[in-house]
Amino acid sequence: MSQYNQPLGGNEMPRFGGPATMMRLPTAASAEGIDAGFIGIPMDIGSSNRPGTRLGPRQIRDESRMLRPYNMATGAAPFEHMQVADLGDVPINTFDLKKSVQIIASHYAEVLSHGCRPLTLGGDHTLTWPILRAMRDRHGPVALIHVDAHADINDEMFGEKVAHGCPFRRAWEEGCLINDKVFQIGLRGTGYSPEDFDWGRDKGWRVIPAEECWWKSLTPLMEEIRARIGDAPCYLSFDIDSLDPAFAPGTGTVEPGGLNTWQALEIVRGCAGLNLVGGDLVEVSPPYDPSGNTALIGANLLYEMLSVLPHKG
Amino acid sequence: MSQYNQPLGGNEMPRFGGPATMMRLPTAASAEGIDAGFIGIPMDIGSSNRPGTRLGPRQIRDESRMLRPYNMATGAAPFEHMQVADLGDVPINTFDLKKSVQIIASHYAEVLSHGCRPLTLGGDHTLTWPILRAMRDRHGPVALIHVDAHADINDEMFGEKVAHGCPFRRAWEEGCLINDKVFQIGLRGTGYSPEDFDWGRDKGWRVIPAEECWWKSLTPLMEEIRARIGDAPCYLSFDIDSLDPAFAPGTGTVEPGGLNTWQALEIVRGCAGLNLVGGDLVEVSPPYDPSGNTALIGANLLYEMLSVLPHKG
Amino acid sequence: MSQYNQPLGGNEMPRFGGPATMMRLPTAASAEGIDAGFIGIPMDIGSSNRPGTRLGPRQIRDESRMLRPYNMATGAAPFEHMQVADLGDVPINTFDLKKSVQIIASHYAEVLSHGCRPLTLGGDHTLTWPILRAMRDRHGPVALIHVDAHADINDEMFGEKVAHGCPFRRAWEEGCLINDKVFQIGLRGTGYSPEDFDWGRDKGWRVIPAEECWWKSLTPLMEEIRARIGDAPCYLSFDIDSLDPAFAPGTGTVEPGGLNTWQALEIVRGCAGLNLVGGDLVEVSPPYDPSGNTALIGANLLYEMLSVLPHKG
Amino acid sequence: MSQYNQPLGGNEMPRFGGPATMMRLPTAASAEGIDAGFIGIPMDIGSSNRPGTRLGPRQIRDESRMLRPYNMATGAAPFEHMQVADLGDVPINTFDLKKSVQIIASHYAEVLSHGCRPLTLGGDHTLTWPILRAMRDRHGPVALIHVDAHADINDEMFGEKVAHGCPFRRAWEEGCLINDKVFQIGLRGTGYSPEDFDWGRDKGWRVIPAEECWWKSLTPLMEEIRARIGDAPCYLSFDIDSLDPAFAPGTGTVEPGGLNTWQALEIVRGCAGLNLVGGDLVEVSPPYDPSGNTALIGANLLYEMLSVLPHKG
Amino acid sequence: MSQYNQPLGGNEMPRFGGPATMMRLPTAASAEGIDAGFIGIPMDIGSSNRPGTRLGPRQIRDESRMLRPYNMATGAAPFEHMQVADLGDVPINTFDLKKSVQIIASHYAEVLSHGCRPLTLGGDHTLTWPILRAMRDRHGPVALIHVDAHADINDEMFGEKVAHGCPFRRAWEEGCLINDKVFQIGLRGTGYSPEDFDWGRDKGWRVIPAEECWWKSLTPLMEEIRARIGDAPCYLSFDIDSLDPAFAPGTGTVEPGGLNTWQALEIVRGCAGLNLVGGDLVEVSPPYDPSGNTALIGANLLYEMLSVLPHKG
Amino acid sequence: MSQYNQPLGGNEMPRFGGPATMMRLPTAASAEGIDAGFIGIPMDIGSSNRPGTRLGPRQIRDESRMLRPYNMATGAAPFEHMQVADLGDVPINTFDLKKSVQIIASHYAEVLSHGCRPLTLGGDHTLTWPILRAMRDRHGPVALIHVDAHADINDEMFGEKVAHGCPFRRAWEEGCLINDKVFQIGLRGTGYSPEDFDWGRDKGWRVIPAEECWWKSLTPLMEEIRARIGDAPCYLSFDIDSLDPAFAPGTGTVEPGGLNTWQALEIVRGCAGLNLVGGDLVEVSPPYDPSGNTALIGANLLYEMLSVLPHKG
Ligand SMILES: [Mn+2]
Ligand SMILES: [Mn+2]
Ligand SMILES: [Mn+2]
Ligand SMILES: [Mn+2]
Ligand SMILES: [Mn+2]
Ligand SMILES: [Mn+2]
Ligand SMILES: [Mn+2]
Ligand SMILES: [Mn+2]
Ligand SMILES: [Mn+2]
Ligand SMILES: [Mn+2]
Ligand SMILES: [Mn+2]
Ligand SMILES: [Mn+2]
Repeated sequence: MSQYNQPLGGNEMPRFGGPATMMRLPTAASAEGIDAGFIGIPMDIGSSNRPGTRLGPRQIRDESRMLRPYNMATGAAPFEHMQVADLGDVPINTFDLKKSVQIIASHYAEVLSHGCRPLTLGGDHTLTWPILRAMRDRHGPVALIHVDAHADINDEMFGEKVAHGCPFRRAWEEGCLINDKVFQIGLRGTGYSPEDFDWGRDKGWRVIPAEECWWKSLTPLMEEIRARIGDAPCYLSFDIDSLDPAFAPGTGTVEPGGLNTWQALEIVRGCAGLNLVGGDLVEVSPPYDPSGNTALIGANLLYEMLSVLPHKG
Repeated sequence: MSQYNQPLGGNEMPRFGGPATMMRLPTAASAEGIDAGFIGIPMDIGSSNRPGTRLGPRQIRDESRMLRPYNMATGAAPFEHMQVADLGDVPINTFDLKKSVQIIASHYAEVLSHGCRPLTLGGDHTLTWPILRAMRDRHGPVALIHVDAHADINDEMFGEKVAHGCPFRRAWEEGCLINDKVFQIGLRGTGYSPEDFDWGRDKGWRVIPAEECWWKSLTPLMEEIRARIGDAPCYLSFDIDSLDPAFAPGTGTVEPGGLNTWQALEIVRGCAGLNLVGGDLVEVSPPYDPSGNTALIGANLLYEMLSVLPHKG
Repeated sequence: MSQYNQPLGGNEMPRFGGPATMMRLPTAASAEGIDAGFIGIPMDIGSSNRPGTRLGPRQIRDESRMLRPYNMATGAAPFEHMQVADLGDVPINTFDLKKSVQIIASHYAEVLSHGCRPLTLGGDHTLTWPILRAMRDRHGPVALIHVDAHADINDEMFGEKVAHGCPFRRAWEEGCLINDKVFQIGLRGTGYSPEDFDWGRDKGWRVIPAEECWWKSLTPLMEEIRARIGDAPCYLSFDIDSLDPAFAPGTGTVEPGGLNTWQALEIVRGCAGLNLVGGDLVEVSPPYDPSGNTALIGANLLYEMLSVLPHKG
Repeated sequence: MSQYNQPLGGNEMPRFGGPATMMRLPTAASAEGIDAGFIGIPMDIGSSNRPGTRLGPRQIRDESRMLRPYNMATGAAPFEHMQVADLGDVPINTFDLKKSVQIIASHYAEVLSHGCRPLTLGGDHTLTWPILRAMRDRHGPVALIHVDAHADINDEMFGEKVAHGCPFRRAWEEGCLINDKVFQIGLRGTGYSPEDFDWGRDKGWRVIPAEECWWKSLTPLMEEIRARIGDAPCYLSFDIDSLDPAFAPGTGTVEPGGLNTWQALEIVRGCAGLNLVGGDLVEVSPPYDPSGNTALIGANLLYEMLSVLPHKG
Repeated sequence: MSQYNQPLGGNEMPRFGGPATMMRLPTAASAEGIDAGFIGIPMDIGSSNRPGTRLGPRQIRDESRMLRPYNMATGAAPFEHMQVADLGDVPINTFDLKKSVQIIASHYAEVLSHGCRPLTLGGDHTLTWPILRAMRDRHGPVALIHVDAHADINDEMFGEKVAHGCPFRRAWEEGCLINDKVFQIGLRGTGYSPEDFDWGRDKGWRVIPAEECWWKSLTPLMEEIRARIGDAPCYLSFDIDSLDPAFAPGTGTVEPGGLNTWQALEIVRGCAGLNLVGGDLVEVSPPYDPSGNTALIGANLLYEMLSVLPHKG
Repeated sequence: MSQYNQPLGGNEMPRFGGPATMMRLPTAASAEGIDAGFIGIPMDIGSSNRPGTRLGPRQIRDESRMLRPYNMATGAAPFEHMQVADLGDVPINTFDLKKSVQIIASHYAEVLSHGCRPLTLGGDHTLTWPILRAMRDRHGPVALIHVDAHADINDEMFGEKVAHGCPFRRAWEEGCLINDKVFQIGLRGTGYSPEDFDWGRDKGWRVIPAEECWWKSLTPLMEEIRARIGDAPCYLSFDIDSLDPAFAPGTGTVEPGGLNTWQALEIVRGCAGLNLVGGDLVEVSPPYDPSGNTALIGANLLYEMLSVLPHKG
């Protein structure tokens, strides 16, 4: 028997039964002793269009029930060498977005203090800002791989600084990012001016619009990215709306012409070798996909993130 | 041809076409000259459980398309003697609930300044607080008929004073209500203590739990209520979750054992003769009823409210 | 083994398998030798609001699969004394409503020529007009029990004489009805003037609005109706929108405040003893109830109609 | 702070977050020291029509998240005087129904050995048979209140003795029931012969068909039942399909004309004073109600069962 | 402030609020002074399989709410140099397809008389025939880019000349098309004989079946098409069922193996430089995609059409 | 008129009407004289995760209604040279999986005895084991093309030998397969160890994981496969979960990163020239795709299988 937590197997309990934790893993009340922890942030009050991401963490956990421990494609076996647990949810204040941001920042500071690498189940994208702030406090500025249909670098939305279209602007302002190691993949759609994508470019970020991704494997791109990032601490923020709505219908700000799941897997698998200090999978909105498949894909991508975390020690 | 706005008829444009305004009425940019105006408040950030009421106004308008001008049951013909229009939506700040409350209060102050009676398409129930404040500023304290599964008189939720479980506490604190003319109909479910319902009773409010409504017509109750309210200015706040989920599945904080649509119609029709200064229909959450029927029922109840507004002049 | 067709039993084939015929009965290519036949009319081009009733017959048949032969409440055992079959669908012209009306009329003339009593799976309510015409040609004018939210006696809709809001006007014009034996149950909602319900009253019809049905059993009403109709040939036309949308969400022109399924069963069971020459169940629109329950209720009501058909001979 | 487990409150964690346990209660690995335990049985392979009840326990738990500790209608406060926990799921064998029955029986024998009163989240109705067997072994034969659209006393289905239509026949054969204290409420629909309902009557059971329940409160019936049962150990088995599909669309073998939620609450609340040794809520099939409301009603009924359990000691 | 209409911005009104017009643009009662106008045709009575396209225009407008004015991929900024408005819906006769065709033809003749370029929100594909007739009357025969799973050149369907499978046959018969400038892209599926695709080829049309589009960018194809069409007036008719159902589930006559959204964008963007005199996006059927994403993609494609309209003057 | 059965055409009966048989073909009570027969197996009790495939055959038939006789892409016209019929469903025992396996084996032995080539509408994948056993008895060991996300070669699931994850292990044990002519295409996801895919390789099977299929046509692969199989009797088993969930959301054990419909068509069309002795399309779960499109795609793939069956004689 392993010294590490294992997902409850399908031969011990039918997959549709048992605890509705991430991958049917044991829970832990604290990140102490946990190498990698799944954390839910049930929030949608930063959303500008369709709501529902508050329900994302519960459905991602529910639909993670088919995940088995071994990654057939990559050979990763994360539960062989890491202590992994479901660390539960952040008790955000659902009536006040700005206070929630503070709650998240404090919560992640505590988690990071134990050396745990957090993998976050969102929740709307606002949450990445306070996480990046906690990351900066722990690791200094980080490299960033940001997969999204949107740049999320608005200065304000409806006059507000805190919203799901602003997290990377805020993180940049607070010095959370290593600007020549920031990558935005999958951007597309409509905006107000070229500035929407060029703002980051002006900071030294590399923006790869969706159109540049069409018709090809992203494995070569990930090689380039790995070369550029090297061993800097790196954060992966994956907005499920980066995918074309065919692949991820259950989200709030849909833009056609996006990535496909083959590319999504290539991106996350292409992070193997990086010094990933954490990651998130955000913007899953269950009411817009009653089949549960968007959440299921989110769960798989979180498992793939777990599979590429650096081995401990 | 009438001097008043008329809904676009089904013989001029198929009901599934034409403008998606309330009852396919003309819009008006201001309440000036409007006797009764439909106003949407697309808000759900005050919700404590399922989201989605931000989409309520759009779907209520869409599903109002079958409404014809004459009320077969009551003989009311509101478009014969009132100028009615769709006044559009309140531009709430979807990232800040407290600011939204201020926006709503100002908006309704302006609407009321024209002598218009507003009928509001919600939106989560937080919105009734700022409306009642505007009502108080215009009319002084008002009588209140509050139909709901919940008392909505919490002092705080998650430490906050502004949330969809608190509007009537706030309104009471601000002196918006005539305490011996407040009626809460349909309350039920679980809570923390008897205080949840008794708080209002202590203020002089009459609380009629759902259980007291089972198995009977509410027409006699409405007679009692009319007798008690007399000609005081009266506000009607109708939370669609007062209905049993069989009748209104599309809402966020569902409690079984509620009212039925027969009683809902009896309540609103039972307001005929009161000096209704406004009303709202709140908590319709479209993602939880893709058939659209919850919104359709909401639209019908709003039409019934229109049908019992006092004639102008 | 019975001399009569029997539904395929659940012990011979799982209920979710086997032929998707009505009640899993055998089909028949002609009505010859058939005492009672189920006929589908897959039509929705007469609908004025939501579409979808074209899919009604298929889903009613699908959801009829749980129906067993014996009526526990009434003791009826229709397959003990009648030859019943699924007679398939009428090949309507889905691009031309007026031609479809002719096709239906001819089709039912043929069916009636064999002495068969047709029970129709709709389809939008336009279909009842040509059926009543065929009934008149066979039986002379008939008594009518019409259960509906709407009177369906419009002279025109959008300038057209043929639409699902007009069948009973047309049938009256063509002398299909015995005017002092016409009953309209469940009418409600909005209209253009009192005339919408009074037109029939002027002809001698009895109109029982939904409001008169609230809070009580309809068994006494059915006694009155049976007394009035006596042994005149009688047709039962049941529009599923007569039910409150809580009970039948899957339909196109929804009106809240309707009948419940207890009353629906009382109405159909209350037809026992009448000389029913046919019946229909119309306006089931599958896309508006993915659970299939509206169709299932329709299937049950059709079975209840079968249960009250006069025994042959 | 209470000596007893309490549901995680909405002021500590938003209701859509936190552990997806029943009522957001703590879990317990064993029934030792637990007065009342919620247990899930994720099973649907005993179902004869629509599948999906295997997912019932997860969704009932998810939708139980709004339940607060105090019962506003009855004044019950179960967490004040009982230790309650979520005992997790029974690891049934989803590929073999007969083995699953044995697993359930053993599982409940263990639970009952601790003096715990189990409240079961189904799952198809087959599960009540092994529970009743365990009850008999612990308590001797028990009184039974069985709320259902179906009698579930088939000798065989498709030649099998184990299926969701047979549990009470099996339980009777094994001497689990006190025959003059068995009540079947809500039966209706179609069958094969009068025997379907009379079989139980012949054993001394009281059968109350749905038709006898229409139009009236069931509180008087429950008084009669309590008088007859006295202080015999009593089991309550509640099949959600007893409710009319308007009130509980998400189930597999739907019969129109059923109970309503007012009656459902009256039945469970009417069990106060009985010596309830356990109860179950079965046949919730999530895929047939994406709103989650059927599961939510199930969760409420389970809470009401908890509210009427005899106080410990 | 622009001299041209602008979409209501997300900083003025939350995107889920405000008028449900196309792109939240102002409406206009006439095409006078309008360079490009969005027009809805709420029709589905020409459909041969699943219904629902009558609801397409309303849902396309609703889901267009996220569209911002600037096209990030192409740099187009249509509201900088054109007067664009929502021109409302054509009042078709929903009970008579043939009359609807006449109504559409007249309506578009009027619109075209103002020099306005119409972009149509369908509606079933029958509508393209009367639009092409109006185009011919205004511009003479036009080049045609027809994107579809189906050739839509049937001589008759069920004996009828007017149906959604016939518009291009009718348009050809009436001399609306420049035969050596007709392109049909995406055709596939089953038929009756090779004639189904060869009929157009015999007229000089170029047919590009879906299979020829698999695995590659369509940008080169669009170059060829532009070269062939030159500056002839050109009409773009885009049937959403050209897309694989993965990308556009909400439509009525689904054929697997279709285009993807990358190709759809390439096709429309590849029309830049053509003398587009109008376009349509047809066959969106909302009931078959409750997420709204099919309509949202339709809205985006209509915006892309707007982006490639020739600048005025 | 053809000597062979033809699908009922859309000009004889609207496609949404008529018999809900596969392709609206005539049924046949026996396989005698039938060259190729569609057979449904309404089973899901072998499923390990989401249920619902018991409803697959009914929905596949329903959604097959648009299929016309001629294959536009390949020129196949199967009804010109084969007698094809819908042979109905296998009466499985839905309460006992092991007995169902025996029933299926016997049923197919009978079908094969007539020289009929069966095309099976599943149903969970357990069913392929008994079919392969019947194939072996008739033809000796067969070549196998197995398209799936999963290898389905588990020795046991939950201690059971019979489950939808085991059929090819069982078939191998029973000598049903020609080991150097077995191909597994599309495998992916998570597992327990490399053994999950290598077990077959050790037997000589060729495993082509999904990742090897990304970004390219599978036509070359099919050429290789045809070369290897030659004229050996060959069986094609197509699990719809081989497709990425974007293309086939309605299934039970979803794995992202799968095949697309272009590849699915290439695979089946690439079987032309093989000596196909039968095929199946399994794991369509209707409740997880209410649009019906997954079933529709399944129906199309079954038609493509029919199109590549060797001509008789
Ligand atoms: Mn984002
Ligand atoms: Mn995004
Ligand atoms: Mn409220
Ligand atoms: Mn409420
Ligand atoms: Mn009608
Ligand atoms: Mn009606
Ligand atoms: Mn039962
Ligand atoms: Mn039952
Ligand atoms: Mn077309
Ligand atoms: Mn098409
Ligand atoms: Mn498989
Ligand atoms: Mn599989």
